This record gives sequence, C-alpha cells and structure tokens, in this order.
Amino acid sequence: MALEVFHKDETLQMRRKLIGQSCRLFFSHDPVKIMRARGQYLYDENGMQYLDCISNVQHVGHCHPSITQAAAAQMDLLYSNTRFLHDNIVLYANRLAATLPKKLCVFYFVNSGSEANDLALRLARQYTRHQDVIVLDYAYHGHLTSLIDISPYKFRKLEGQKEGVHVAPLPDTYHGIYREDHLDPGQAYADTVKSLIEEAHKKGRKISSFFAESLPSVGGQIIFPTGYCKRVAESVHEAGGVYVADEIQTGFGRVGSHFWAFQLQGEDFCPDIVTMGKPMGNGHPIACVATTEEIADAFTANGVEYFNTFGGNPVSCAIGLAVLDVIEKEDLRGNAVRVGGHLKQLLLQLQTKHPLVGDVRGVGLFIGMELVKDRVSRKPATEEAAHLVRRLKEERIVISTDGPWDSVIKFKPPMCFSIEDAERVSTCIDQILGETVPFLEYCLHRTAMEKYPAEEDQKTDTLSVINPSTYRKNNDTLCYLGHGNPTHSLGFMSIPQSRFISF
Amino acid sequence: MALEVFHKDETLQMRRKLIGQSCRLFFSHDPVKIMRARGQYLYDENGMQYLDCISNVQHVGHCHPSITQAAAAQMDLLYSNTRFLHDNIVLYANRLAATLPKKLCVFYFVNSGSEANDLALRLARQYTRHQDVIVLDYAYHGHLTSLIDISPYKFRKLEGQKEGVHVAPLPDTYHGIYREDHLDPGQAYADTVKSLIEEAHKKGRKISSFFAESLPSVGGQIIFPTGYCKRVAESVHEAGGVYVADEIQTGFGRVGSHFWAFQLQGEDFCPDIVTMGKPMGNGHPIACVATTEEIADAFTANGVEYFNTFGGNPVSCAIGLAVLDVIEKEDLRGNAVRVGGHLKQLLLQLQTKHPLVGDVRGVGLFIGMELVKDRVSRKPATEEAAHLVRRLKEERIVISTDGPWDSVIKFKPPMCFSIEDAERVSTCIDQILGETVPFLEYCLHRTAMEKYPAEEDQKTDTLSVINPSTYRKNNDTLCYLGHGNPTHSLGFMSIPQSRFISF
Repeated sequence: MALEVFHKDETLQMRRKLIGQSCRLFFSHDPVKIMRARGQYLYDENGMQYLDCISNVQHVGHCHPSITQAAAAQMDLLYSNTRFLHDNIVLYANRLAATLPKKLCVFYFVNSGSEANDLALRLARQYTRHQDVIVLDYAYHGHLTSLIDISPYKFRKLEGQKEGVHVAPLPDTYHGIYREDHLDPGQAYADTVKSLIEEAHKKGRKISSFFAESLPSVGGQIIFPTGYCKRVAESVHEAGGVYVADEIQTGFGRVGSHFWAFQLQGEDFCPDIVTMGKPMGNGHPIACVATTEEIADAFTANGVEYFNTFGGNPVSCAIGLAVLDVIEKEDLRGNAVRVGGHLKQLLLQLQTKHPLVGDVRGVGLFIGMELVKDRVSRKPATEEAAHLVRRLKEERIVISTDGPWDSVIKFKPPMCFSIEDAERVSTCIDQILGETVPFLEYCLHRTAMEKYPAEEDQKTDTLSVINPSTYRKNNDTLCYLGHGNPTHSLGFMSIPQSRFISF
Repeated sequence: MALEVFHKDETLQMRRKLIGQSCRLFFSHDPVKIMRARGQYLYDENGMQYLDCISNVQHVGHCHPSITQAAAAQMDLLYSNTRFLHDNIVLYANRLAATLPKKLCVFYFVNSGSEANDLALRLARQYTRHQDVIVLDYAYHGHLTSLIDISPYKFRKLEGQKEGVHVAPLPDTYHGIYREDHLDPGQAYADTVKSLIEEAHKKGRKISSFFAESLPSVGGQIIFPTGYCKRVAESVHEAGGVYVADEIQTGFGRVGSHFWAFQLQGEDFCPDIVTMGKPMGNGHPIACVATTEEIADAFTANGVEYFNTFGGNPVSCAIGLAVLDVIEKEDLRGNAVRVGGHLKQLLLQLQTKHPLVGDVRGVGLFIGMELVKDRVSRKPATEEAAHLVRRLKEERIVISTDGPWDSVIKFKPPMCFSIEDAERVSTCIDQILGETVPFLEYCLHRTAMEKYPAEEDQKTDTLSVINPSTYRKNNDTLCYLGHGNPTHSLGFMSIPQSRFISF
C-alpha cells in the first residue's frame, strides 16, 4: 500500500488552491482519493476497493505489469525524439496498419486525442483546400481552440457557432428526429448531412471534412444506424471533402467484434482519416492520426515540417506495442463480446422491471443505459441518473453519465471487466432503482441546496456526500437522523448546524 | 546493447512508407539510427558514440536512472486521470510554485508545449475578452492550428498572416533594426510593440496578449536587451492584454543563474502567464501553464470544464518531481553556469580567430554562434553553417542550426554537458573552420545537386552523405576520388554512376 503524503482534506485544499478550478473532480463535493489501481479496481487511501466502470483509457486494465515493464525497459535505453531513426515507431505503425483498411497506411504520432483531431483538421484542410467542417450535434472533439470551434457540446456554452461550422443532427434513433420505427434511419440521417452540404454550397462555402466519433460518446453512447457512414461519406466526397472518424474513445477493440468502431458500418465504408488516442497507451500520453497516401502527400507538399516533440518517441511506441500485445494475448476483444453482451442482457432485464430505464444500447464494452421520466415522452431523467451515480458510489462502484441531458449511464470499463463485475453492477442498479426512499430524500436535499446553496455550484455532484437515510425534512428545516456532526457529513454544502434538528 | 529489429536501411524504408513525410529526420539524407543514450551521449546501431549538443528535452541527461525508477514505481501504482484526487499533482504544482514569483500560483497540466500555448491563448482571451495577439517575428509557438496562426516562422510558409495577429520586430541586437551600438535597445524595441498596439487600436482591434519565448530560439538564440520585457508588459497591460512568457525551451534552469529565463529581465518583471514543456519530463510528454488567480478565476467563471485526459496524471507528475530532484541534487544549474560560461569563452576565442564567426551569444547552456559571410554586412553564412553541422556529424557531434537564415549554430545540450564536452566541440569547430578544401567541395556538390536534383528537396541535409574529400569537379562531371560505389555513397542524390569519372 502506497503511503499518503497529505491527508485527503489537505490534498483537496491544496488542489483547490494550486490547480485551475476548471479542472473538475469526479464527485466534486466528496471526491475520491485513489492511491492505486489494478485491472478494473481502484483503491482509495483507506484501501477501500471501487469497481471502475468508466476508465476507458486504462484499456487493458490499470497498471498492467506488461505495460510497466515495456515502458521501464525502453526508458532505460532511449527516450528521444523522432528526428533520429528508430525501429519502434515503424514497428508500431506497421502493427496499427494491420488493423486498418489498406488505404489507411500513413501515420502521424502525437500526444493526445486533441492533438490528433487538430492535425486531422490541418490534413483535411490542406488536402481539400476547403475550410468548412460538418460535425454532429452534441459532439466533443477536444479541448484545443480549433476543436472547441467544432464541438457543439463546448461552443454552445462558450463563444457560439462559428461561420464555417455546420451542425448535423445526431443520428440518435431513441431521441432524434428519426427513430427506431423509421424504415431507413441510416438513409434519413445521411440525407440531413446532404442537405447541410447543399445549404453550405448555396452560401458559397466549401466543405473540408465531416468529423464524427464512430460511436458518439458525449452525445449519449449512440450507435449509428445501418448505412449511415457510407452514405455520409458519399455526400462528403462529392462535395470534395473527407470523412474523419474520431476513434479516440471507441477504437482498440472496445466494440469487441471489430478493432475499430467504424468497421461496424460494414466493409464498404472506410474513412479518409482516423484519429486515435485515449486507450492507445493505457494511460500514457500517446495518440495518432492514420490517413491515406494522397492526403499525407498533400500535407508534405506544402514543404513545411511537422514536428511533434514527444510524438512517436521510442517509449510511447514501446508502450503502444505492449498494449496491442496484451489485447491479443488476453483476448480482450473476445472478453468485450462476452462480458459486454452479458452486461447488456442484464441491463435489458432491468428495463423490463424498472420503468425508469428507457433504453439500453451499445456494443462490446461500450454501453449506455438511458433513464427517462416516462417511456412515452422519453423525457430525460437527469436527476435520477445523478442520484443513481451517487448511490453507486456509496456501493463502491465508479460510474458516470453522458448524453445531452446527462441521463445516460455510461459503461466504458477497462477491457478486463468480468462477468462477475457485470453482475455486481447490474444487481446494485436493480436494488437502487427499487429503493423507495431516495427520491423523496433527494427532493429534500434539493430543497436544502436551493435554500443554502453550496459555495461552488457544481450541480451534478452537490449532494453526493449525503447519505439519504440520515435526513428528513421538517418544514423548511432538514432533520438529521444520523450520528456525529451533520455539517461535517454535508461536506461543502455549508448548511449551518443550527438549521438541523437531531433526533 | 539493444538489438536492432530491422537493418537501418529497412527501418528507413519502412519509415518513408509508414510515417508522414512532413515528419523530418535529422541529416535526412543519411539519418542517424540511435539505439540507446545515456547522459549527453547517443549510441547508434553499431555502438558508435555521438556527443549530443541539442537534446534540450532530455534535460537532466538521457535515460537518467532516477527518472526511470520514479516512472516505473508510479506506473505500477496508478496511471489514472486527474478527476480523482491524488497527491502527486499538488506536490508537483507546489514545487513549481516555489520556483516562480508568488503571483503565478495556479497550474494547469497538459501533454505538450503546444497544448500549453493553446491553453494560454484561451486563458488570455477569456480573461481579457480581447482576441488579438502580438508575437515576435520568426517566432514558433507550436504545431497546432491556433499556434501556427501566431507563429510567423510557420504562417509565412503557409496561409499567411491572419487578421488579429500583429508581428513585432525581433529584438535582435546583432541583425535587427536596433543594434548593440544603440543606447537603449530595450526601450527602442519595446517602443515598437507600443506602436503596434497603437496601430491596432486605430483599426478598432483589441490586444489579448503579447506572446514571446523568454529567449527566442527559432529566432536565432536571441537574448533580450535589458528592460525590454518590463516595458513591453507595461504597454500590453495598458492595452488590457496579458504577457505570456513561453518558457518551453528555456525553463528549468537552462540559463543557470535563474530557474526561468524571464527572470534574467530582473525582479521588477513578471509575466501573467508562463508556459512550460520540453524539459519538464526529460522526454516524457508533460507540459504546464502557470498563471495568476485572477486569470484562472476568469477561466473558471465561464462555467465550462477543462478536461485534459492525460494532463497531470500521477505518473507524469512523479516524473516531473524526479526531474526537479535531479536538477537540485546534481546542481545542474551550477553546471550550466560553469560549463555554459566556459563554452561561451571558447567560442568567443574562435571568433577572434575565424572571420566566419560573427557573433557568440547566450547564457548558461543556451548558446548561439552565428556565422556570417563577412562581419561588415553580417550577411548570414547559411551554407557554411550547414556544412559545419555536416562535418561535426562526421566527427560524431550532433548539433544543428537555427535563426531566420539557419546561420546560427545552436547549443542546447542536456544539462550534464561537461567541460570536456565543451572543449571537444570547440576544438572540432576550430579544426573544421580551418579546413581549406570543404567550401570548394561544397560548391561542387551544390552544382551536382542543382544538375541532378534529389527526389525530395530537403535542402539543409541534401549533401550530408558526401565526404567532401572524395569528389572533384571536372567541367560538369563530378569526379569520384574514393573507393567503392559512388552512387551508393551519394545516397538519395540519384546521380547516375555514368556521370562520374573514377580515378
């Protein structure tokens, strides 16, 4: 067990002081301090184990010894840049090429998914000589200036939509304009992109690229309808643009049946650029852009060097190679098929039992369970989803929400997630959804929060410290039913003790 | 000795095929394959040792065992993201804070200098609510879309200067508009920034920031004149903007006397934002933005999360802490003062001997030696500098050029560079500059290149494979004076064998 340097409260205080507060914590009103992790399990400062359902970056499992060994061995030999020749970068590019359609055969290594998407933008614009970009609604493609511009999830909260960015409807057959009862939602949604291109052309604008995650994540764990990508690609190509598949969250076998999520759309679809990141290095900062010879040649032809200080260094590539080895040796794609399939079945059973569960969708270990107020209106059950996440944390299960209304419980665990883990989480969800008290309690807490707002308004987590069974409302006073000091239990809600009546 | 997977030729062939050709190699027509490195020494596939004068990223020396141990130990414990509480990030931020003026007390951790500069732009724009940026001529701030826009070194070769970007003269007292004989070049150059702001204001534009490396590197290893930064900061503040010091190449004690290069400008100057990168992780991808509480608060106030998947993770911070420890324990700042001072003295001696050496400037282990055709016109001796780099490579010394005309030999070695290393490189330069043959030969090769151009036009390295003593010109035919197959020796120049006369 690693030793804590600071007590948790002190760590939190120092973090509040030293780290930009735009960098948020999970469960921000009662954050978890994690000291070590292994496989799909996290351990806090008291050695308490949490089941991790969301760390898709730690793809082959937290702290896999093969990865650590490969990194340390290469760090002892060489950690220089790619202006010197080295075998690792070509070995790694070659291995990645083997997972992709033949035409995606040129690679650029970078340090993050954001760097990869920015480079994809540059490649697309250089190759097509066009500037405009089509993106899907609610999309998030990274934290850089250029990517916020093409991320409706972010730009709607910031400077707004820029000229030259065109937002297509999210092909969400549960909430979107065409639903599961439509005869051909793939065609219908692809037609919305075609129309968008036509409108752009009428304004004299030219499309450089269509950018989309192969399975929209922030959009709510969306699975594209059949035929969508191929038809979109046809329209985009016709307009002189390229198709960029953002596989940063979805690649490296997460979907199980295929190595890349775009391959779910069939062999007759191939993107022109693929960006990859998060799971590539199992935590280590490495990312990549794969593209065609033609696009790479156009980029070279501008005569300007592309130099990425750390991208493709021997250590990053050694780690990338080790990750690929573990995926194969431990048959993690097979595991994603088996465990993901089982988990989806278990969640579908919950859907038959709990009216709150509106939809269960996903493939492999990329699964979403959407909560709704009722199944007719499909009104998102945002607060209930937040409550479920909080309650699961009390049960030592780390999970979170996604989607436009934060109403989708997302599963993107390390790929070593087991059948037993799937059963544990589904049993816990079943129990929590069966509890009668929490929603009443939740409303009480909400009232308290409105009356005595927390210093920092981070709504989704504000109530996470409260054990619902220890409070009851008495007019406008919260009654404390537990032991000890209630203001302490309430963490950062700052409700003065005098407001409580203890029984 | 690590084993090669591929023969060097095969590695090169695979790299040409698999890696985007915009990613260039050092000595691209006869690249060096490096298998391992230690301290300031690189070793190729035959175990041949090279002295490394330019790897500023491998700050405390290549493959320092303390760094590898710290990385491996933390990788075995936890390599997760910063949404969980962890001690390392606050420990590291705290250590960095101790090196900076008090007001720079809030930190954001990212993966590369480019990510840091992009975030600095976002912070500056959010805080000031202004958009425009002032940069120095020839500056390079990173490979991202947003940074190419503010990097004259890049945008001049690409899309050109955008509205909202203002280019101030480089305060270069050797080549610039105000020189070493000016009474107060600091004031004079600062006034150029003031005028630029006034012009921008006349056009109704508003300045968000002044962006500058604390010692311009690509600009040619420039040392700012006294008082420059403070006066620029005054004008920029007056215009409602902030001063961003890009310390990506210059920080972490490289200048010896101070931890940050901006501190050379005196205690009455403090930037509003500092970006750091390259040397932070000794090769590992880590970078950072430090700023004031006011700027961080303005960024938080937009209500939008900043999430960087890998930035500030426990492994990156453990590595960062280990780097700081080695800088202290091995007194690398003291070494930079001693060895850098000695090297500068040796180069100044060469200046008294060789008319080609126009200027020697620098501080600590950040030194530039500028070559000129003659000392009156100060016309840059670009070809001679390229020749010197090639000849030094033959002497197993890795060095390169910088500056607007690639006429500045730059020294930015690992900080463990020794007095003996300094003497070795200066002795070699002395010998090479004393050679009479090479420039004649160089012209012959150049003629050959123009007649039979290489398939890839990478001018600076085209001739690097040629051993100058083995060729002589005979009318328009190159005469081969060496042994073996001349076309082979000529590498990628593709001059047919029939063009040669062997003696």
